[in-house]
Amino acid sequence: MDTLIYDGIIVTLDERDTWYNPGYVFIKGNKIREVNSGQPPKELFSQAKKVIKASNKLVMPGLINNHTHAAMSLFRGLADDLPLDKWLDTYIFPIEKAFVNEEFTYWGTLLAGWEMIRSGTTCFADGYFCEDGAVKACLDLGIRAILAQGIIDFPAPSVLDPKKNILHAEQFLKKWQSVSELIIPAVFAHAPYTCSDKTLKFAKKLADDYQTFFFIHVAETKWEVEEIKKIHGFTPLTYLYHLGILDQKTIIVHANWLTREEVNIIRDTGVKVVHCPESNLKLASGLSPVPELLDKNILVALGTDGCASNNNLDLFQEMNTCAKIHKGFSLDPTIMPAKTVLKMATVYPAQMFSLNIGVLKKGNFADLIIINFKQPHLFPFYNPYSHLVYAVHGTDIETVIINGKIIMEDKKLLGINSPKIKTNIYNLANKIKLHLSPNH
Amino acid sequence: MDTLIYDGIIVTLDERDTWYNPGYVFIKGNKIREVNSGQPPKELFSQAKKVIKASNKLVMPGLINNHTHAAMSLFRGLADDLPLDKWLDTYIFPIEKAFVNEEFTYWGTLLAGWEMIRSGTTCFADGYFCEDGAVKACLDLGIRAILAQGIIDFPAPSVLDPKKNILHAEQFLKKWQSVSELIIPAVFAHAPYTCSDKTLKFAKKLADDYQTFFFIHVAETKWEVEEIKKIHGFTPLTYLYHLGILDQKTIIVHANWLTREEVNIIRDTGVKVVHCPESNLKLASGLSPVPELLDKNILVALGTDGCASNNNLDLFQEMNTCAKIHKGFSLDPTIMPAKTVLKMATVYPAQMFSLNIGVLKKGNFADLIIINFKQPHLFPFYNPYSHLVYAVHGTDIETVIINGKIIMEDKKLLGINSPKIKTNIYNLANKIKLHLSPNH
Repeated sequence: MDTLIYDGIIVTLDERDTWYNPGYVFIKGNKIREVNSGQPPKELFSQAKKVIKASNKLVMPGLINNHTHAAMSLFRGLADDLPLDKWLDTYIFPIEKAFVNEEFTYWGTLLAGWEMIRSGTTCFADGYFCEDGAVKACLDLGIRAILAQGIIDFPAPSVLDPKKNILHAEQFLKKWQSVSELIIPAVFAHAPYTCSDKTLKFAKKLADDYQTFFFIHVAETKWEVEEIKKIHGFTPLTYLYHLGILDQKTIIVHANWLTREEVNIIRDTGVKVVHCPESNLKLASGLSPVPELLDKNILVALGTDGCASNNNLDLFQEMNTCAKIHKGFSLDPTIMPAKTVLKMATVYPAQMFSLNIGVLKKGNFADLIIINFKQPHLFPFYNPYSHLVYAVHGTDIETVIINGKIIMEDKKLLGINSPKIKTNIYNLANKIKLHLSPNH
Repeated sequence: MDTLIYDGIIVTLDERDTWYNPGYVFIKGNKIREVNSGQPPKELFSQAKKVIKASNKLVMPGLINNHTHAAMSLFRGLADDLPLDKWLDTYIFPIEKAFVNEEFTYWGTLLAGWEMIRSGTTCFADGYFCEDGAVKACLDLGIRAILAQGIIDFPAPSVLDPKKNILHAEQFLKKWQSVSELIIPAVFAHAPYTCSDKTLKFAKKLADDYQTFFFIHVAETKWEVEEIKKIHGFTPLTYLYHLGILDQKTIIVHANWLTREEVNIIRDTGVKVVHCPESNLKLASGLSPVPELLDKNILVALGTDGCASNNNLDLFQEMNTCAKIHKGFSLDPTIMPAKTVLKMATVYPAQMFSLNIGVLKKGNFADLIIINFKQPHLFPFYNPYSHLVYAVHGTDIETVIINGKIIMEDKKLLGINSPKIKTNIYNLANKIKLHLSPNH
C-alpha cells in the first residue's frame, strides 16, 4: 500500500542527521520513495492509497531491539531481586524445563512482539529454545526479526539430547531460511560456560554454512570470567578468539568485563556488540565499556534482554537508561549523548545486520513509527533527539509501519486477536503459578 | 464526593504490606473510609455517589515526588549532555535571569503538575523562585504540594537584592500558610555554596518560626565537597551540622558524597534525605549511598528533580532506575528490592512530611491512583510490586484522586484548560528559542 505521511517532525537519522519540521515521507510498496522537508507536492496525495496527517507528531525509523528472549515475557515479574544462582536454579531453569515447548514460545513471542510493536520496535533479534514457535509468531505479527535457535550443552526444551543440538539448529535454519523477507533464521550459542569448545565451533560453522549470524552471551559476569579462566586459561572473549569463532558475523551480547586487549580483538575481528544496560543493572552483572568501544568504531547496538531480567521490552526506556548510566558511572555528563544512543537502536543495528532499515531514506524498507508529540511530558519542544531519549515513553507510539504495511494504527495492533492472546497467556501463567506455589 | 472503587487489585502499602485481589476502597469526603478484600457490601454501592469498577486495574496510593523545580518543565530538552559549568553558565542561569517571573512559574508549574498527575503523582515537594506562581498553579490543579520559596545569595528572579531574600521568603510563608489544606509553604535554601552561613541560619530560623520544612541541596557533586572544604574546613553536611541547622524538619536533597560520620550525623539529627537518581546520573554528579542510609533507618524518599536535568517527572520511571542503579553499582542484585523502592515514593515521604497519605487505610486522605493492568507490557501478572517498579509506565495511569476528588478520569485531567496551557507554553518556549538562537 502506498502511504503518504505529512506535516510531521521527520527525524531521518541519515548521515547528516537531517531532520525536518515539517516534512513528509512517501512510501511505495514496502520501500521509502521520498523523504523531504515542507509540504508534499499535490500529486503524492492522489498517488497515496493512505494519507496520514502527522501534525504535532514525530516520524522516525522503527527501533531495533538487538537482544531478547521474547518468549520469556511469560516470566515477567515472576522472580526479582534475587542472587543470580538462586534466580536461575530455583526459578528460571526449573520453570523452563517444565513449561517451554513450541506452543509456549509461540504465545510468549506473540505477547513480546505485541509489546515491542506498541513501544516502537519494528525489528528484533531473538535467541531462545523451540524457536519454531517464535518464527510462527513473528509471521503472524508481521514484525521483522532475526530469530536464533538456542544451542546449549544441557538437555534443553526442544532438544533433550544435547548431542543433537547442532542438528536441531540446522533443521531450524533449513526450514525457515526462505520463509519471508522479514525473517532471518540464525544461531545462538548460549555462553562459553554452557557450551563446550566443540559445540561452539560446530555452531559457528553451521552459522557460516548458512551465511547467517552467530550470537553468544560473553563476559556477562565476573563469575563467568573467573570460571572460564579456571577451565580454559583465558578470559571468555580471548577464549572465543582462540577457538576461531570471532568474525564480522559474530555478535557478542553483554561484553561487560573486557580487557583492553579484548577491545582490540573485537575491533580487529569485526565482531559486533549488543549492550543490555537495564538487564545488566538489574542482575548486577556489570557494565559494558560502551564509550570505549564506540571510540574504536566498534558497532554497538542496544538490547532489552528478556522479560525475566528487565522486565519490559521498551527500547525507549532502555535508551534513557543507557544515556544516563554511562554518564553516572564515568562521572562525565558529555559521554553518550542522546543522538549516539538513538543510533544504537536504529542506524548501528541496521549496519550490524546489513539491513536497509534504521534510516529514513529513499530505497530503504519502510519500517517507521509515528509518535504523538502533543503530550504534556513532551512539551515544550526544542530538540528531537533529547525528547526521544530522555522524555518519550514507549506508550507514546501511535502508528507503526513495517515493510510498508501499517501494523499498528492509533495504538491498536491491526493483525492480532488480542483477547485470544490474553486468554492463552492467562492460562499459561496460571499453570506456572500453580507449579510455583509449593516453593513459595 | 463519596466514591466506591471495587473489583481491583488493591495495594495498600500498610504495615503488613497487605494487598487484595480483588478488593475495594470506599472514600467518604476527602478520606478513606474502608479498604478490604473481596466484593464490597451492597450498601456501599447505594451510599457512593460515584462507583468505579476496577477489574484488571490496580489501585494504590498516589506517588509523592519529593524534589523538583516544577517550573523548569519549560526548559525540558533545551540543553543536555553538557559539562555542568557550561550547562549552568551558558544555558540555565542566563535563561532563568531573562525569563523567570511569577507568570513563568505559574505556567511552568501547571505544565509540570499536569505531567505529574498524568503519571500518578498526587503530591510533590517543589523548590524554586517566584513560588507564588507555583502556589496558584497547584490550587488550580488541585494537587497536594509542599512549595518552598528559593533563597540564594545572588540576584534571583523574584528578589533582585539578595539582602531581601529572607524577608521575601517570610512574605511567601505568611501569605500562603492557610490558603488550603493541600498546600504547605516551606523554605528552600539553594546550597551551601550559594548561600552564606548567615543566610543559611536565618533561612532555617524562618522555617522553624513558621513550623515548616527546610530544604537544601547538599553534597551533590565532588566539586561542591572540595569547594566547601576549601572555604569552611568541613565537608558540606558537616558544615551544615556545625551551623546548627540539621534537625527533623531539615530535608537534604541529593546527598551523593557522604562520609560514614556524616551518615551518622544524619541519623542522629533526624534529617531526611531525598534521592534523585536520574538527575544524578544525567548530570554525572554521583550516587547517594541509599542502601546504607536505609539500613540505619534514615527516611529516604525519591525525587525526579527538575526537567532541565532529567527530563521528565515520571516517578514510575524514577523508581525503575532507582532499583536498578543501586544493584548495578554495588554488583548486588538483592539490594533495593522493588517493595522498598515503592515505599520511597509513598510511605516514606508521607512520614517525612507527617502527612496522612502514602498508605491506603481508614482515616488517611484519599490520594490514590488507578492503573490499567490489561496491557501487554503488564501481562502476565504474578506480583504487584514487581510490575509497579519494573514494568508500569507513568502513561498507564487512568484515574487520579486527590483529597477525595477525582482529578483525572480515563487519562483526562478534569480541572484544566489544556489548549490554553499549551498556547501559553508554546509562546513562552518560542521566546526562549529566539533568545537562545544567537548562541547556537
